[in-house]
Amino acid sequence: MSELTFTKGHGTLNDFVLLNDPDDELLLSAADVSLLCDRRAGIGGDGVLRAVRARHIEEWSGDPDLWFMDYRNADGTLAEMCGNGLRVFVRFLVAEGLVEPGDLSVGTRAGLRHAWFLPDGRVRVSMGQVRVSDARVQVKVGSQQWAGIPVDVGNPHVVSVLRSEDQLATLDLSRAPECEPGDHFPRGVNAEFVELRGPGRLAMRVHERGSGETWSCGTGVVAAAAAVGGVGAGGGVQVEVPGGALEVRFTDGEATLTGPAVLVAKGRWLPGFGDAAQACERGSS
Amino acid sequence: MSELTFTKGHGTLNDFVLLNDPDDELLLSAADVSLLCDRRAGIGGDGVLRAVRARHIEEWSGDPDLWFMDYRNADGTLAEMCGNGLRVFVRFLVAEGLVEPGDLSVGTRAGLRHAWFLPDGRVRVSMGQVRVSDARVQVKVGSQQWAGIPVDVGNPHVVSVLRSEDQLATLDLSRAPECEPGDHFPRGVNAEFVELRGPGRLAMRVHERGSGETWSCGTGVVAAAAAVGGVGAGGGVQVEVPGGALEVRFTDGEATLTGPAVLVAKGRWLPGFGDAAQACERGSS
Repeated sequence: MSELTFTKGHGTLNDFVLLNDPDDELLLSAADVSLLCDRRAGIGGDGVLRAVRARHIEEWSGDPDLWFMDYRNADGTLAEMCGNGLRVFVRFLVAEGLVEPGDLSVGTRAGLRHAWFLPDGRVRVSMGQVRVSDARVQVKVGSQQWAGIPVDVGNPHVVSVLRSEDQLATLDLSRAPECEPGDHFPRGVNAEFVELRGPGRLAMRVHERGSGETWSCGTGVVAAAAAVGGVGAGGGVQVEVPGGALEVRFTDGEATLTGPAVLVAKGRWLPGFGDAAQACERGSS
Repeated sequence: MSELTFTKGHGTLNDFVLLNDPDDELLLSAADVSLLCDRRAGIGGDGVLRAVRARHIEEWSGDPDLWFMDYRNADGTLAEMCGNGLRVFVRFLVAEGLVEPGDLSVGTRAGLRHAWFLPDGRVRVSMGQVRVSDARVQVKVGSQQWAGIPVDVGNPHVVSVLRSEDQLATLDLSRAPECEPGDHFPRGVNAEFVELRGPGRLAMRVHERGSGETWSCGTGVVAAAAAVGGVGAGGGVQVEVPGGALEVRFTDGEATLTGPAVLVAKGRWLPGFGDAAQACERGSS
């Protein structure tokens, strides 16, 4: 991996390394992505969001002139969609001058997504169809258990609504919650734990499959709002996660997710030591 | 905190945000440092290393023209010295063009320190006096215990040498090891666990007071080498830590620490959202 320019940003502390690569010139191996996302040896992030013209994405059959969000997990594997990432991604497109400020559509591996910039600075993104199951699954954390509600947001979730005597803050999510029957989620599941705070107001913590507890999970927030408020409910659902505040709305079974999208730094990745730093300065002057 | 230019670097995965501030113009509050070091909302690092002319440091009575390493912990508190940080710091001074490439002296809160750039790319730094105590302290991890050797490297350490049947890799350092008598280290202690690998070769893990287990600790590596090899031993001691390989040498009771110093990125800290990103681009063009 040679030198490249990056931006660092986050949405409710779900953080990303963003790359501007319109003509698909960056050849990023899984090892490159992993190094960029390494929090000590690299820039650090939950994943890489690469902005590339959709025409360069083989599996994309829609408008070739759209910007495509090529999302890679921190381990270098491909990922389909990320609601927190998409907000930061569209903020990045505007900051880089790749699109005019305003509402826009973006290609993702989960299909077309839309984004709206709100006057208060937040960004709203479409999250696709949400399906709440009628089934119930036993979810266990230590000696506590709940009748979890399976929700499909393109990826699998199970939402547990805490009783008034339960304490959200003290749940031990350092290990994956157990689900019964164990084969209900053959590809694993993201587990949300929800405390009702009032009409249309939730607090939530999440254990993501493969990642452990995280400070925010866009699809998890949508799943929690759908399980508690119902996809048919009018108005917005306010969801507090450890990383900040998000809002979910439903229209015709489709969800939108609204929240902050923050760019914190822009820089050059230097493939070496001190000499490379000087080469970088020459390159950018 | 307004916009600023930063460099990110690490020494055996002990990582830092480096700032070039010759005339002491950056007014960094503890909250600023903490935000810069935040791994999700900021740049991310174990601490900030600010390069400032020594004349601006009130407690410095030496050469006012030296570069001073103003080291702050990730929580914003002042720190005296950091062997891994000092290597990265002098690499940064050269990369920024603040000093000519070559050996140099630097002011720190622990006093004057020296640095040498080796032909193989590593950096050697002086670590000051090391004192190995004759006392022994019981160190416990789970059901295992050792007679720990107290070592003073400006900060307090206790070194436990594992028996041949002990497994360094499986020690549970997720909690602070217990020491007896408990009042032997009134300000707390950094605890090193050492596996002998051969003549002059050690592997080590460390639990740092206040930080938990880390991938490397410069003073800890020096303490381990001193406890095992003895300050009077000739030749170097090779120490493997989870973050990489380091070498310790002793001359007249003073230690040097040799190892890698890597700069990985240089960029602008942006105090806002997309608009700020555009302002940054204007500012640097």
